[in-house]
Amino acid sequence: MNNYRLNQQIQFIVEIDKLKTVLRQTMLTDGSRRENSGEHSWHLAMMTMILAEYAPSEVDLFHAMKMVLIHDLVEIDAGDTFCFDIQNNKSKAQREAAAAKRLFGILPENQGKELHLLWEEFEARETPSAKFAAALDRIQPMLNNKATKGGTWQLYNITHEQVMKRMAPVEEGAPQLWNLVQETIEECIAAGYLQPPKSTTTTQG
Amino acid sequence: MNNYRLNQQIQFIVEIDKLKTVLRQTMLTDGSRRENSGEHSWHLAMMTMILAEYAPSEVDLFHAMKMVLIHDLVEIDAGDTFCFDIQNNKSKAQREAAAAKRLFGILPENQGKELHLLWEEFEARETPSAKFAAALDRIQPMLNNKATKGGTWQLYNITHEQVMKRMAPVEEGAPQLWNLVQETIEECIAAGYLQPPKSTTTTQG
Ligand SMILES: [Ca+2]
Repeated sequence: MNNYRLNQQIQFIVEIDKLKTVLRQTMLTDGSRRENSGEHSWHLAMMTMILAEYAPSEVDLFHAMKMVLIHDLVEIDAGDTFCFDIQNNKSKAQREAAAAKRLFGILPENQGKELHLLWEEFEARETPSAKFAAALDRIQPMLNNKATKGGTWQLYNITHEQVMKRMAPVEEGAPQLWNLVQETIEECIAAGYLQPPKSTTTTQG
Repeated sequence: MNNYRLNQQIQFIVEIDKLKTVLRQTMLTDGSRRENSGEHSWHLAMMTMILAEYAPSEVDLFHAMKMVLIHDLVEIDAGDTFCFDIQNNKSKAQREAAAAKRLFGILPENQGKELHLLWEEFEARETPSAKFAAALDRIQPMLNNKATKGGTWQLYNITHEQVMKRMAPVEEGAPQLWNLVQETIEECIAAGYLQPPKSTTTTQG
């Protein structure tokens, strides 16, 4: 191609096809296989659209949508780090920062910088848009875990306490959806998909 | 859930997980497997972002992005119809209309109607945003076919004439990207990934 700038952009578009081969722990709702990070990102973008009316008024929905679309790109190099994996989460930040540098570096400089900032904004979870994006990123696997009778919670014996800690950003980023989370978790406990919190276990005899 | 409206929206969000199991003919760039329509839609949304500067000024980018995100949802019921399959393309419109009615009908009425209109706008390809979205939907498989040494063009003996007919909407919807298409097709012919147009085949002897 004669156009150097467009050539860099096309190179990036071809490169990110690889996100479709990065597997997450979450299963598809039909239980047929693990979800990949490309289709996961699509699902979050759809949720940004469908659940837009529950976003706090300060949220810029287009900006939040762009954030969920790019939030997992670093996994192309760094792999998906399971949220409950303590060991791998220690090295996560460093691995992902290197990945961001390489990947966004494929793009024309101004555009690469823009995407890098967008990813950092998502990671920092400080702006209303980033907080809303993070909330959706927590809700989606919860829904898939419910649909697969506990999914990864069952597979890795994840506790109620761990799940609630993981879900906490929803309360801040999408307070209007917090009730949904609480009710869904209660339904999952009632259905036996998640162990109830230890403190409320009734003792026999 | 007590909130009936939110319940419908969550039901829709869970339902569309199925798009991740609808396989297209296009292969991933690494040739490992066929692409599914969920991750394909993500890729188009990323392209909307990365190639935004080449959109005609009348294009509403957020609107175009929403369109590419939802454009394939009807395939959950209707399946993916290969663009070069003449027989199945005859029944496509009817099958997809029924799918749209069921799927968007899961949503609260006003929102379902909004998404239905958005999908019809994409299908009609009359607005600048729909034309731009269609252009991206043509460019992405071309890039993947190039990356897989001809991909589906090779597999189904697709001719240069068929490809150019398929790519035509790019010239109208994203004229600034038409040169990219022409050059990429030429590169694919030169590399032997696509047969040259019959009229320019040199005769031996
Ligand atoms: Ca995520």
